[in-house]
Amino acid sequence: MTRNRITENGGIDVALLGAGRIGKIHAGNVGRHAHARLRYIVDVHTPSADALAAEHDAQAVGLEQALADPEVGAVVICSSTDTHADLIQRAAAAGKAIFCEKPVDLDLERARACASAVQKAGVTCMIGFQRRFDPTFAALKRRLDAGEIGQPEVLVITSRDPGPPPLAYIAQSGGIFKDMLIHDFDIFRWILGGEAVSVHASGACPDHPEIAAAGDLTTTAVTLRTRNGALCQINTSRRAAYGYDQRFEVLGSKGLLQAGNVRPTEVSAWSEEAISSDKPEAFFLERYRAAYALEIAHFFDALRNGTPVRTTIEDGIKALELADLATRSWREGRAVEC
Amino acid sequence: MTRNRITENGGIDVALLGAGRIGKIHAGNVGRHAHARLRYIVDVHTPSADALAAEHDAQAVGLEQALADPEVGAVVICSSTDTHADLIQRAAAAGKAIFCEKPVDLDLERARACASAVQKAGVTCMIGFQRRFDPTFAALKRRLDAGEIGQPEVLVITSRDPGPPPLAYIAQSGGIFKDMLIHDFDIFRWILGGEAVSVHASGACPDHPEIAAAGDLTTTAVTLRTRNGALCQINTSRRAAYGYDQRFEVLGSKGLLQAGNVRPTEVSAWSEEAISSDKPEAFFLERYRAAYALEIAHFFDALRNGTPVRTTIEDGIKALELADLATRSWREGRAVEC
Amino acid sequence: MTRNRITENGGIDVALLGAGRIGKIHAGNVGRHAHARLRYIVDVHTPSADALAAEHDAQAVGLEQALADPEVGAVVICSSTDTHADLIQRAAAAGKAIFCEKPVDLDLERARACASAVQKAGVTCMIGFQRRFDPTFAALKRRLDAGEIGQPEVLVITSRDPGPPPLAYIAQSGGIFKDMLIHDFDIFRWILGGEAVSVHASGACPDHPEIAAAGDLTTTAVTLRTRNGALCQINTSRRAAYGYDQRFEVLGSKGLLQAGNVRPTEVSAWSEEAISSDKPEAFFLERYRAAYALEIAHFFDALRNGTPVRTTIEDGIKALELADLATRSWREGRAVEC
Amino acid sequence: MTRNRITENGGIDVALLGAGRIGKIHAGNVGRHAHARLRYIVDVHTPSADALAAEHDAQAVGLEQALADPEVGAVVICSSTDTHADLIQRAAAAGKAIFCEKPVDLDLERARACASAVQKAGVTCMIGFQRRFDPTFAALKRRLDAGEIGQPEVLVITSRDPGPPPLAYIAQSGGIFKDMLIHDFDIFRWILGGEAVSVHASGACPDHPEIAAAGDLTTTAVTLRTRNGALCQINTSRRAAYGYDQRFEVLGSKGLLQAGNVRPTEVSAWSEEAISSDKPEAFFLERYRAAYALEIAHFFDALRNGTPVRTTIEDGIKALELADLATRSWREGRAVEC
Repeated sequence: MTRNRITENGGIDVALLGAGRIGKIHAGNVGRHAHARLRYIVDVHTPSADALAAEHDAQAVGLEQALADPEVGAVVICSSTDTHADLIQRAAAAGKAIFCEKPVDLDLERARACASAVQKAGVTCMIGFQRRFDPTFAALKRRLDAGEIGQPEVLVITSRDPGPPPLAYIAQSGGIFKDMLIHDFDIFRWILGGEAVSVHASGACPDHPEIAAAGDLTTTAVTLRTRNGALCQINTSRRAAYGYDQRFEVLGSKGLLQAGNVRPTEVSAWSEEAISSDKPEAFFLERYRAAYALEIAHFFDALRNGTPVRTTIEDGIKALELADLATRSWREGRAVEC
Repeated sequence: MTRNRITENGGIDVALLGAGRIGKIHAGNVGRHAHARLRYIVDVHTPSADALAAEHDAQAVGLEQALADPEVGAVVICSSTDTHADLIQRAAAAGKAIFCEKPVDLDLERARACASAVQKAGVTCMIGFQRRFDPTFAALKRRLDAGEIGQPEVLVITSRDPGPPPLAYIAQSGGIFKDMLIHDFDIFRWILGGEAVSVHASGACPDHPEIAAAGDLTTTAVTLRTRNGALCQINTSRRAAYGYDQRFEVLGSKGLLQAGNVRPTEVSAWSEEAISSDKPEAFFLERYRAAYALEIAHFFDALRNGTPVRTTIEDGIKALELADLATRSWREGRAVEC
Repeated sequence: MTRNRITENGGIDVALLGAGRIGKIHAGNVGRHAHARLRYIVDVHTPSADALAAEHDAQAVGLEQALADPEVGAVVICSSTDTHADLIQRAAAAGKAIFCEKPVDLDLERARACASAVQKAGVTCMIGFQRRFDPTFAALKRRLDAGEIGQPEVLVITSRDPGPPPLAYIAQSGGIFKDMLIHDFDIFRWILGGEAVSVHASGACPDHPEIAAAGDLTTTAVTLRTRNGALCQINTSRRAAYGYDQRFEVLGSKGLLQAGNVRPTEVSAWSEEAISSDKPEAFFLERYRAAYALEIAHFFDALRNGTPVRTTIEDGIKALELADLATRSWREGRAVEC
Repeated sequence: MTRNRITENGGIDVALLGAGRIGKIHAGNVGRHAHARLRYIVDVHTPSADALAAEHDAQAVGLEQALADPEVGAVVICSSTDTHADLIQRAAAAGKAIFCEKPVDLDLERARACASAVQKAGVTCMIGFQRRFDPTFAALKRRLDAGEIGQPEVLVITSRDPGPPPLAYIAQSGGIFKDMLIHDFDIFRWILGGEAVSVHASGACPDHPEIAAAGDLTTTAVTLRTRNGALCQINTSRRAAYGYDQRFEVLGSKGLLQAGNVRPTEVSAWSEEAISSDKPEAFFLERYRAAYALEIAHFFDALRNGTPVRTTIEDGIKALELADLATRSWREGRAVEC
């Protein structure tokens, strides 16, 4: 059982660690939550911390001060990946409930050490696999669980970014499988509900020699197989000229469920050339806007109700294991057993 | 030029008049706006006023007190229709900027008196035609204005409710043309950008003798024609078994723009029977959730920037005139000139 | 009971009157029918008759010869509109079963005389309202008749051509209501299953002064009402820049059925600008390709089985009556009772 | 250069070998072709041959007679798979142009022997990969070739049957990779335009122990990689509860092209539960109806014009090689190099 600190009136005081792009999203969602209060912003880049703190009537402080405050019930970790493990361990030691962006760490051993620390401290730790909270994906999952299509047999995931990130980001990202597909591996585990027994990954890097030189890929094709024989194919690209593309479909013994993209508007234009509609939402901040709010709400609801979180640190580790295996499969040019 | 009271820091203190269903929506949107502050809630039903005030750290007070407070820069009127005219006139006299739900009044003369009062007082008065702020409808309008389909020639509006309101509501609603189609008449004026020269309305009331007995309809078919020859057909129903349906399309000299429904999710299910997707959003509160937030933001932005509002009290009166003409056309069984 | 001549082996010998564009379509469909034989082609333009006859191993002859041949069981009339009435009457007098393109005649009295002649002769006469045989439209009708959406209450028809015909054609077409909307009036009668009690028509002629000068329109908005209170709105245009558009939808007491356009292919393209799919089939010959084959097959099946045809000369006359009323409504600027 | 026999008037006399289900389709399409004449039907099952011959005014004869007739310019082979190789070799020896259903043979060596025989005889030999002639697939290919999406990088193929064939059929089918995926391998080669360098296949057989016992699968997930680094994922199932599903999409450097399913009608129904549309066409005979006609027309056009056919016996062998490699990959649980 987890021990989370909740204030007398049922509210939770929060320290947010990391004032970057995703930090701002989480700060807004914490601020809008009826039962959470954004108390501290921690960021080594002081101007960012100050600005975000000012916007939310919070206080920009150092990490020690935030963790030392007994009123703080939870931390939201959205700093750079290389800081996650340390912050999780320190927050766990301080008895804080933890929400941490994916991935736990790029190194599996360090990630497992985090899980041990969390377990030992008995605190809640939720990993930010926000896609599980996307209204479309979540509705599909509910219908799948309700038996609408029987047993799931095949999962096909399409996951494409509008363009590759800067090379500097790629260099320290852990590679496409840990950086980008980790979300897809989580979807695989969530939808098929069973662990993988084999992983095969293939990849390519068209038109981006600098990414290839950095030992990474722009494009992958992964196949996973679960213990009970369900199959999953994931196709990803970092360079979909048309934008951000997030779809999957599950074939079950009784039918198919598809989760499609979300569009900014429902306008369509009929011209001499074609009938055209909007491209999908531009990127993850737009597509998963609702999901980010819902995952934070879920985190605080779980803390208040004492119920388990939907995406645990174990989920984070399992997805990381698959990313490691996929990386190995691609490098060695062979399928690997789990 | 309008004279609106804005506090020193550029923020606006607000009194919200009417704590019902739509009042709660507006209260939430005022509360979330960075530059507005919900100060007072006014409702003759004290428990409703108290509850909403408590939720928003506002104060439940009487109308006089709210209007007498010089700090209050704007009122948001969302009480019952029969109170609108009085509240507009009193708020105008008190020098407050006004946001008022449609319709201005069921009686055209009283509505015109409101417009005079507003003009005399020199205050801003915006009418809540929220559909103009719907992201899909607004995107279509921008593309139309940008010339994408040339001159608009034909507008077809489909506007259907999932079920008729209670008979008591119908009895004091002013009839379907003032209650329901007033939004469609506003869309007509907004999209075709010209005033009507003739109106023809037909109607029916299948399966609802009690509504017919009350002198009203469930179903209408209206045709309007503008001075420059553009045609508009509006088909409405209060009883679409499948839900809430809000679509329109504009045929222009160079193409067609369609504005479709919005769905809760993008899941589709392929079964032995069919491929099925979500019905449209359930009703206006869901469909126009974004529009309600955007219209309130527009109101406050206009006040702060001293720019005109997009839906003025004149727009409210023009739509009401068309509703009156349509009612007459239907009752007399003939087309009427404007 | 009709008396149709069918050869001993159950086949039907056919004389096709009119070797133009639609004549070629019908000739092909007669030729492909297992139980019909294209024997004669009649056309005053001899080269056309000869060419079409050669293509189908038929004989180009004069009208008298074709009608005098006792082996000929049926005529297919697809010559110009002004010849229909005379050909129907002569074919009826010769005891031939008749398939005739719409309209029966532009003049209601002459059309009625044709119906009398047909009735007196006791021959089958089918009018080519091919839209009823379109697989999409026919499937909708079957589902409507099966009660899927309860009682039909509102019908909305969108019917647009890609561009106006030559002025010479317009001049002798009888006007847009007889030439173009006659199909839509037939759809109205077929889908709502009741006769009109009132018709209101409005029209416009943007950018085509030469058509206006000829007393015709490019754009119309028609409202019909049936005896039992169902409403129908028809919007048409002769100048849809994006192509040919043939859709309708029926709102019933239990739901909605929509009949959409048919596309040449199911390719969609996702680009930096938009997601685009094919425009509808280019024009009536493409969109109704299947319908033309199915209506001819229905005609011959009805002859062989002694069953009634689905689109009788009475249907042709009823649609013409509505076209007359709509023309009058538009000219007089008022709704007219039927 | 091939030497094909064409009659003086440019027409081609045809012997059709195999009067089963697909034989009837081809017979109809040969019969409807303006420049082909169905002269002989050959089938060991005499009643089938007689019936089909009677329907098409052809003659049911033995194979020797058909091949001995110098007037016969082409054979259409649609008998059972185990007869293909022998018939190709005998027809080639007789100097006939050959259209043969896929696969050439289940055994790669025998298939290669057929190719040698064809080459030695100098006759045209087309393999029935009808999907390349599907209007949707062919339109996508034209747009791809025109450069609309730049270089193809990723191909995702979804290919599902509504239910598994009888066990007796499966037992002699060569397995799912040769029987079902051979079409998908041909699509892979056609769309990506390069040969595979590696193949990885995974498979499963849920709910069908009898198929598993026969050494076959119901479900596969295949990944191919081309020499120039393009990736392809194929997911297939023999048991899609909702029907027949034939889609693919190509991601290129400049965008995406999708080829979707074809529906029987464009009706959609809006009910209290959902908005639903037709399932895809029921099975291959319906979905590829147009493709079957177009491939036969292409065959005869190529013969008459002396131009190459689009799907040669080499294409048949290449697809078979991929099927062999995929079978091996699945059996050995590893990716295989080509």
